[in-house]
Amino acid sequence: MKFKNEKELGFGNKRYQNTVRFLNRDGSVNISRRGLGFENLDLYNWFISSRHSVFYSILLVGYLAVNFIFGSLYYCIGADQFGGIDTSTEFQKFISLFFFSAQTITTLGYGHIYPVGNAASVAAAFESLLGLLAFAIVTGILFGRFSRPRAHLEYSKNLLIAPYGEIKGLMFRISNKKQYELIEAEASVMLSMNDPQSGKRIFLQLPLEISKINFLTLSWTIVHPIDDKSPLYGLSIQDLEKLDMELMILIQAVNDGIAQTVYSRFSYKAHDIVEGAKFRPMKTEPDARGRLQLNVTEVHHFDYVEK
Amino acid sequence: MKFKNEKELGFGNKRYQNTVRFLNRDGSVNISRRGLGFENLDLYNWFISSRHSVFYSILLVGYLAVNFIFGSLYYCIGADQFGGIDTSTEFQKFISLFFFSAQTITTLGYGHIYPVGNAASVAAAFESLLGLLAFAIVTGILFGRFSRPRAHLEYSKNLLIAPYGEIKGLMFRISNKKQYELIEAEASVMLSMNDPQSGKRIFLQLPLEISKINFLTLSWTIVHPIDDKSPLYGLSIQDLEKLDMELMILIQAVNDGIAQTVYSRFSYKAHDIVEGAKFRPMKTEPDARGRLQLNVTEVHHFDYVEK
Amino acid sequence: MKFKNEKELGFGNKRYQNTVRFLNRDGSVNISRRGLGFENLDLYNWFISSRHSVFYSILLVGYLAVNFIFGSLYYCIGADQFGGIDTSTEFQKFISLFFFSAQTITTLGYGHIYPVGNAASVAAAFESLLGLLAFAIVTGILFGRFSRPRAHLEYSKNLLIAPYGEIKGLMFRISNKKQYELIEAEASVMLSMNDPQSGKRIFLQLPLEISKINFLTLSWTIVHPIDDKSPLYGLSIQDLEKLDMELMILIQAVNDGIAQTVYSRFSYKAHDIVEGAKFRPMKTEPDARGRLQLNVTEVHHFDYVEK
Amino acid sequence: MKFKNEKELGFGNKRYQNTVRFLNRDGSVNISRRGLGFENLDLYNWFISSRHSVFYSILLVGYLAVNFIFGSLYYCIGADQFGGIDTSTEFQKFISLFFFSAQTITTLGYGHIYPVGNAASVAAAFESLLGLLAFAIVTGILFGRFSRPRAHLEYSKNLLIAPYGEIKGLMFRISNKKQYELIEAEASVMLSMNDPQSGKRIFLQLPLEISKINFLTLSWTIVHPIDDKSPLYGLSIQDLEKLDMELMILIQAVNDGIAQTVYSRFSYKAHDIVEGAKFRPMKTEPDARGRLQLNVTEVHHFDYVEK
Repeated sequence: MKFKNEKELGFGNKRYQNTVRFLNRDGSVNISRRGLGFENLDLYNWFISSRHSVFYSILLVGYLAVNFIFGSLYYCIGADQFGGIDTSTEFQKFISLFFFSAQTITTLGYGHIYPVGNAASVAAAFESLLGLLAFAIVTGILFGRFSRPRAHLEYSKNLLIAPYGEIKGLMFRISNKKQYELIEAEASVMLSMNDPQSGKRIFLQLPLEISKINFLTLSWTIVHPIDDKSPLYGLSIQDLEKLDMELMILIQAVNDGIAQTVYSRFSYKAHDIVEGAKFRPMKTEPDARGRLQLNVTEVHHFDYVEK
Repeated sequence: MKFKNEKELGFGNKRYQNTVRFLNRDGSVNISRRGLGFENLDLYNWFISSRHSVFYSILLVGYLAVNFIFGSLYYCIGADQFGGIDTSTEFQKFISLFFFSAQTITTLGYGHIYPVGNAASVAAAFESLLGLLAFAIVTGILFGRFSRPRAHLEYSKNLLIAPYGEIKGLMFRISNKKQYELIEAEASVMLSMNDPQSGKRIFLQLPLEISKINFLTLSWTIVHPIDDKSPLYGLSIQDLEKLDMELMILIQAVNDGIAQTVYSRFSYKAHDIVEGAKFRPMKTEPDARGRLQLNVTEVHHFDYVEK
Repeated sequence: MKFKNEKELGFGNKRYQNTVRFLNRDGSVNISRRGLGFENLDLYNWFISSRHSVFYSILLVGYLAVNFIFGSLYYCIGADQFGGIDTSTEFQKFISLFFFSAQTITTLGYGHIYPVGNAASVAAAFESLLGLLAFAIVTGILFGRFSRPRAHLEYSKNLLIAPYGEIKGLMFRISNKKQYELIEAEASVMLSMNDPQSGKRIFLQLPLEISKINFLTLSWTIVHPIDDKSPLYGLSIQDLEKLDMELMILIQAVNDGIAQTVYSRFSYKAHDIVEGAKFRPMKTEPDARGRLQLNVTEVHHFDYVEK
Repeated sequence: MKFKNEKELGFGNKRYQNTVRFLNRDGSVNISRRGLGFENLDLYNWFISSRHSVFYSILLVGYLAVNFIFGSLYYCIGADQFGGIDTSTEFQKFISLFFFSAQTITTLGYGHIYPVGNAASVAAAFESLLGLLAFAIVTGILFGRFSRPRAHLEYSKNLLIAPYGEIKGLMFRISNKKQYELIEAEASVMLSMNDPQSGKRIFLQLPLEISKINFLTLSWTIVHPIDDKSPLYGLSIQDLEKLDMELMILIQAVNDGIAQTVYSRFSYKAHDIVEGAKFRPMKTEPDARGRLQLNVTEVHHFDYVEK
């Protein structure tokens, strides 16, 4: 086996276990960096990339928790330091102060409950500042979530090995899921597998038929020709499974809605390969108003070819 | 016909109908991507690129709708759970609660109407949080709308075919509509037309006389020389109409007010071509204070030339 | 005269008057684009680049004007539709409603004045929404103002012509005014002057000794060698004044505080040239704590050299 | 000594003192730019890069100071111009007005204290506008702090000189501290030292074994081969200390969480060099869920090698 394209790809020490996956299927890197405590945390990146359900649940729980804390603080200061409190029971006093906290932190301030004593006024003045700061932070994070430059690509479920001119080609297909346009798209494909001779893991950049296109309007089939210089030459799917092959994809393009460069990653394993199949062309029929219709789910469709 | 410049331009399958237009005249891509339901939606991109009238109407209707919903909720909770309500009629009760909702969601909180019961207080605390979040989202979207990097170019209405040295040239002209400056402008011109022999649609990048300039201060006439290597060589306007020719333009430049790369697209069809005409130079007279005056509408002006 | 470096620089038609200046000394382009009415306006760019004094004055005047308008509207609706109004005089009624407007648009809402009638409540609900939107817009513009990527360079007041090896060189010097760092700085220098033979204005890119440096930490002297290929070869300062010479500078660098590419422009005329002088090296003495002190105003200093 | 790679690196005049350090160890440039008064200040850059503790302390102190100023102003206007004031003592009057200021600047507006006289109303209307503007500014700065593109790299504490093939190599190692990914990483290494012959300080770019990698997932050992063309060839650590050697590192990469280019700088001095040692490979064991664990502190570990 010759691995002429092998180069430093940033994976450092290469004595990995056989069955490790470097990229998860969704493109996230399968690595947890530790050892520096708080310095390893990156809260902003976590908040802007967390799922909506998680993010809004945290917001709601945080809102309740802060009001509980300030409600308790006001209760300790004493309900008699406030005007307009419902003092029928101790519990109702706390509830009133909890709602007073909510009205303070949101800077709502109806004023039917209001601080009278100085300690109460100090705590309320501090809470309203805290509310403004928290709100400023949430505004920034929400903007970060919305405006985060991302490529929303649909990758074909399978890697196909199909006749490609005289030889065979390894190919997958991508399509843009969203309505904005991707221009100046560039693909980079890395192969990682175990080398049975050295016992090391090798990382190779695979040459592509075409690695850059101007418009990614409909779909793009990315092809690595399996010629006799290819590290995949002469290997069967079973061989690749044994060698724990992983194909790591990096796509870079300009999202011209926001005029920013966006990135997308994906990873295939040997069990995703289908041999002797070709992608079925995606239909692009114009609708009644002359607008081309593209069904993005067709990016996965392929047909077996006669060998 | 030779199409030596043909290359992968991201338009995928090339068996299109004759009369399809890929780019609309305003540069938007004439494609609707479907099949993934909510995943095809891109609300942020839609909100930052929708027209002002649509965007602010949605805001206003949304504000009314949310207040109607919370007003109704408060009415269900019971007007007696609130202090300061005008209880003269049932309708007036609802109206009061509608306004209470407006005062809560904006965190205005006059306090002449205020929640007394716990259910009312919970709903109001939730509404004020919702208001803050909605406001944070609107702030982000408004900033996204303002700061969206765009090139505001005026394209000449017509494509001209005019004498160009010994041969002819296909040319159009662009000018910047706004007061900021565009620097390092680059043009890329793609030709799409039907190939009568293969029945397929071809996509070609046209070579340009000059494809990059340092300053786009006044105007730029972009010229494709129709030499004997050009795919347009020997074709008449009638031929081009029959072949359903489309010329797709992509301009890239740096807007130096915001120091960001911006993009602009445009599309011409065969019926936009005028043969035997040359662009009239745009006048640039200094005004009383020595400032050059440029009338951007002159970008469209041309004069017929003697053949 | 040979002008071998002449190329399309985006200045379009070249029949200008003799005495026009293309770039103002502060680098702004001396062009006013018209003819499209509102389409020529670019409010966001104007707001983020206007001076602080102008911007904050507009904000204050706008705040007063909006409160005057809404105060008048409330007065038309009738002061009796509001609770808590000082009704001693008609003028005092208007003043109270003016302050009510201010308390509404800022979502302050003390509540000692409050809307009673439905018309008053509708107007107040609308004003508070307007206030939130206006505030969102102001937040976005303020962020745009702060975060606008700019290079803050100090250019030497004079262009020097000094011995440069065997020949002479045209040189100017720049230095960074701020505490952030500029890296990967690139310079581009364009010469514009009248050509006495053709009566046209010519635009040439001047070759530089060094056009890119890695760090712009202290100062950078940018040199155009006046060899026999230079368009300036053999011309005196008087010749250049007659030809209405203008030297247009474009500097590009990465501000590594915000990791963005920033741009700076400047322009010199013939009367800025000093012949037979060399820039005096800028002193960089360490202070008591070992920190190098750089006085940016020294960028202008030069010494006459013996010829 | 030959210094063939010497080139203009933007450090201007080269007659420095022997013992000056250009980059601090944290990568900040050891230069203070002065002479232009306010023009040398860059408040936004300072605010977004200051430490959390400093930034939030300034916010809190500013909040107290503004309330003290407005409280004093209201006190001068007269406590009788306000409703709801605790007038038991003069001090208590001031305290009430201080809290009224806090309720106004945050647009909280409970309304149990409220302005009655016109002067009081004017001051309160102005304070609430000021509060909104200040809040808008703080929102922008907080977003600037969060979203500032930075590379969070851990650099090995030491520079190693180790056998490298037939010759020796100068090497250091970096690793990403955070969970986001860095792609397309590029390194640039500059050497600065005194030249005993000329008495000047020289600045050289050192050639690297590999200067660009695709993924910086685990670690990257950056190597300068000390061949006979290297300016370090034949110099001992003692020589380098005498020559006041400084190695300045600039790393550039794309943070693909935010799809932006980020920069990191670092600096080594001669006393950081360890001779005859090699970096110990960093362990990357998968945890129970198959996720690779990387301890970033291992980036510093090295082992002495037999010579």
